[in-house]
Amino acid sequence: MYLEKIQSPEDLRKLNKENLTDLAQEIRREIISVISNNGGHLASNLGVVELTIALHYVFDTPKDKLIFDVGHQVYTHKLLTGRKDNFDTIRQKDGLSGFSSAKESEYDTFRTGHSSTSLSLACGLARARILRNENFEIVSIIGDGSLSGGMIFEALNDSYNINGKQIIIINDNSMSISKTVGYIPQILNRADRFAKKGIIPTTDCEYYSGINGHDFNQLIDILTYAKNCDNNVIIHVNTIKGMGYRPAELDPLTYHGLVNKKDIISDNTFSRQAGNSLVEIAKTNENVVAITAAMSKSVGLYKFSQLYPNRVYDVGICESHAVTMCAAMTSLDVKPYFLVYSSFIQRGFDQIIHDVCIDDLPVTFLIDRAGLVCDDGQTHQGIYDLSFFNSLPNMTILQPKDTDELDKMIKWSVGFKHPLTIRYPKGDISIKYKNVEQNDCISWEYLYKINNDRIVVCSGAKMCELAYKENSILPNKDKYNIINARIVKPLDETTIKTFEGKNVVILEDNLKNGGLYSSILMFINENNIKCKLTSIAIDKVMPTIGTVSELQNECGLTVEAILHAFEK
Amino acid sequence: MYLEKIQSPEDLRKLNKENLTDLAQEIRREIISVISNNGGHLASNLGVVELTIALHYVFDTPKDKLIFDVGHQVYTHKLLTGRKDNFDTIRQKDGLSGFSSAKESEYDTFRTGHSSTSLSLACGLARARILRNENFEIVSIIGDGSLSGGMIFEALNDSYNINGKQIIIINDNSMSISKTVGYIPQILNRADRFAKKGIIPTTDCEYYSGINGHDFNQLIDILTYAKNCDNNVIIHVNTIKGMGYRPAELDPLTYHGLVNKKDIISDNTFSRQAGNSLVEIAKTNENVVAITAAMSKSVGLYKFSQLYPNRVYDVGICESHAVTMCAAMTSLDVKPYFLVYSSFIQRGFDQIIHDVCIDDLPVTFLIDRAGLVCDDGQTHQGIYDLSFFNSLPNMTILQPKDTDELDKMIKWSVGFKHPLTIRYPKGDISIKYKNVEQNDCISWEYLYKINNDRIVVCSGAKMCELAYKENSILPNKDKYNIINARIVKPLDETTIKTFEGKNVVILEDNLKNGGLYSSILMFINENNIKCKLTSIAIDKVMPTIGTVSELQNECGLTVEAILHAFEK
Repeated sequence: MYLEKIQSPEDLRKLNKENLTDLAQEIRREIISVISNNGGHLASNLGVVELTIALHYVFDTPKDKLIFDVGHQVYTHKLLTGRKDNFDTIRQKDGLSGFSSAKESEYDTFRTGHSSTSLSLACGLARARILRNENFEIVSIIGDGSLSGGMIFEALNDSYNINGKQIIIINDNSMSISKTVGYIPQILNRADRFAKKGIIPTTDCEYYSGINGHDFNQLIDILTYAKNCDNNVIIHVNTIKGMGYRPAELDPLTYHGLVNKKDIISDNTFSRQAGNSLVEIAKTNENVVAITAAMSKSVGLYKFSQLYPNRVYDVGICESHAVTMCAAMTSLDVKPYFLVYSSFIQRGFDQIIHDVCIDDLPVTFLIDRAGLVCDDGQTHQGIYDLSFFNSLPNMTILQPKDTDELDKMIKWSVGFKHPLTIRYPKGDISIKYKNVEQNDCISWEYLYKINNDRIVVCSGAKMCELAYKENSILPNKDKYNIINARIVKPLDETTIKTFEGKNVVILEDNLKNGGLYSSILMFINENNIKCKLTSIAIDKVMPTIGTVSELQNECGLTVEAILHAFEK
Repeated sequence: MYLEKIQSPEDLRKLNKENLTDLAQEIRREIISVISNNGGHLASNLGVVELTIALHYVFDTPKDKLIFDVGHQVYTHKLLTGRKDNFDTIRQKDGLSGFSSAKESEYDTFRTGHSSTSLSLACGLARARILRNENFEIVSIIGDGSLSGGMIFEALNDSYNINGKQIIIINDNSMSISKTVGYIPQILNRADRFAKKGIIPTTDCEYYSGINGHDFNQLIDILTYAKNCDNNVIIHVNTIKGMGYRPAELDPLTYHGLVNKKDIISDNTFSRQAGNSLVEIAKTNENVVAITAAMSKSVGLYKFSQLYPNRVYDVGICESHAVTMCAAMTSLDVKPYFLVYSSFIQRGFDQIIHDVCIDDLPVTFLIDRAGLVCDDGQTHQGIYDLSFFNSLPNMTILQPKDTDELDKMIKWSVGFKHPLTIRYPKGDISIKYKNVEQNDCISWEYLYKINNDRIVVCSGAKMCELAYKENSILPNKDKYNIINARIVKPLDETTIKTFEGKNVVILEDNLKNGGLYSSILMFINENNIKCKLTSIAIDKVMPTIGTVSELQNECGLTVEAILHAFEK
């Protein structure tokens, strides 16, 4: 009854403080209802309902700027800023983003999908504010382990150089996605104790702790103080992840981001297979270790953690550090496997070049969520890593068509002495391949063989699935050969040499530039192979939000495109 | 007379403590003598002579592991570990690296060319030490501003999770490459004061400060204590950058890394031009700002800093933060230019995708030291950025042939509303182009036109220079047309369409995969243009150390390769 009247934060600010608790309950119900259906970051968002209401109640948004880090804790914010009527489209095609997005609303300030960017954004805003002679408050809300990312520290250090006030809110729920690791909980604890002793604040920064993030009186008091204060203010707020929804309070890890349409705990099968295969190789090789950047459960390491707690390392949301750490381990013949999402390994690109590839060290990257990724939108698409890895010296790249092949590849990788990437999609595929030749897992194979000149070369599990599924229902005259290009670097040159005179389509759900098509094209050009080569890849149209199949259609990865390529 | 007897640290440890001061003087003389000739990081290395001697004197190297961060402070270390007889080959073809390199010596532990990796390496080593049940000390020496990089913080946080002792030495010379910026000096200062009050140490980490890094008694005492201690130990050592060489003590910024064969202050002309052009556009456009990651002088910003001190931001060695900070500034119509070395922007790849390109924001990257880079070796080659930038949505890439063109491009860029990269090499070119048509700077141009079917398409200033210089001395029958491909993305399609029937060589000093050749090849394949296309690029052989011309030969970027391509 309150929420329905709020078209913008201005309406919120007209409410009495006493009504906010009821509003919070309405918002919680709305979030639970929509996210149970659409999937999303349930527990995180339930934890910041009161905090978000209080922020919009006190600050003059959108003139004052809120920067949510990570950007997945913005559901209450969206409900309060004119987006409640289409909140049920969240994480769906043409719907609202599950993250903050400046393109979506002037209240969102920036796009924030990856963690730990808030203070860098705040620094940019603070400097621009001076230059443009503007006057507004800047409030960063840092939660869910974002504090462990190195960028936060880089920005904190830099903020010393900037005139003008900033407000930083640490939303401390003792969790990142997994449990927050490392010194940070201790540092916060110590900061709290020092604050009590009067050692902090410094001359230009005040620090307040012990704020109950579900108590409107406390929140509004401290935020009002911060707004009117001339100094920088850091506010350490304690919240309960999953607050108000009993299952999520009891198991915030499971409810962090796994809630989706089908069932409460979805099974990401490639991830689970990766974990299981690692368990098997770890049995016989005691040097095998697994590394995760705050994603232990999501990348499939639960069982491994139970069996080998001393051989799995959760380093926090710190992909840069993780890569270099892995490189160092190889110096004592340890065999590290870094399990990481495609979109997050982008944070380790320098370290992969500098610390792994230049010296040809045997670090294995298990790249989860490679290719098109459903629901999470632009910032989580796994479409960049292949072009990057493909350009690197000493790097080998594998892509299994299904979980059995992932298992084979991981078992094969134990003896491999060079940098290696195995990339696989989110979820699973929906088919079983028939009559596939059993050979090694590092050369190409035919998934379907027919005696005509049409070949589709598929890069990645989802593309194999698409080509195979569609081919099986085509009339005979339209059917094509299907190759599983499960090794992208180096190429399977023997197979490519058989392309002479053929009509070949390269199908990939990653950026065209630097991908498989460009590699094959270079090879046929340099080896004088005459064939017709067509690319179907992500090029002009970038994927947004939707199911994998909607995203494939959006980007033109379709059977129509394949058939059209053959007819041209 | 002492140095000549030291074949390994074992010989050092036979010396009396009283003789170490004389040894230090010998080492200083050797460093000054060799680096004055070869170029290198003079001032940094003069600052750590005593500290390095004391480390090898106290610790049992190579069993105990020293990790120097950044890796350019290792000259004394090299002299003490069996490399004094070829120390005069440092930074030269087939000579010693100017950085630590595990391939070069077992004493070097790891390759460390980029900053802030030490503690991540130490974490990997500490974990591997447990797994492998080995026993040795791990000592990280952090200096020259490496402390500002976010990886240090990520690793510090993570180290809480690791059993086993680590020793961290903070070599505090109050400088990074430029003056150390931000909160760090304050934090160190505060840590020192807290230590005096007994607030630090914590239960598992001891902290010592006020150590004079040029006093052997103090150094040996504290290092011996640290070696025998069971706790983690952090030692804050004060050193003087340039110690013992008066000009470098007085001007450590200039002497940081600019000393080379020809003269004490070399002029990097593309860098200077970038700075000068920015000064000019800043005059008429008050929204133009410049950002540097601790490289203000090296990237040419000295004059800009003098004229517009409030519009230049040195954020520390924090490329990730810098990129996101720039993205945020555009929200208030500020026009940010981030001046950064090619090999260092690798640290910002995720942020370029996530914070700049996805939302198509007008951040300009001025990529200095792009292409082959002399002297500094593998970790500083500017050969990766083009493939990366070339794959990104919304990105435009320019490469000027000379400083005049760089000036034009920067002036043109002011009105450009999208992500933009302008990449240029270290130093200058040695020729003046004649009779070049004056047209815009964002389409291709002929640098030399002759009526035959041979075309060399050059990517980047150094490749234009090579092709032009060599062509001018060829006999008429061998001469070729030369195109300056000063825009790489998007391609100049009109010009490529004229390639029909021609014999075209693409010459580029960056990775072949994802570079200009692959883009052109895709275009001619898709537009059915029949021509012979040959790539000369960095592919099988990666560049090591040497002059640019030596590196070009090493990688096969030569006129012989061009002529051979035409004859095939």
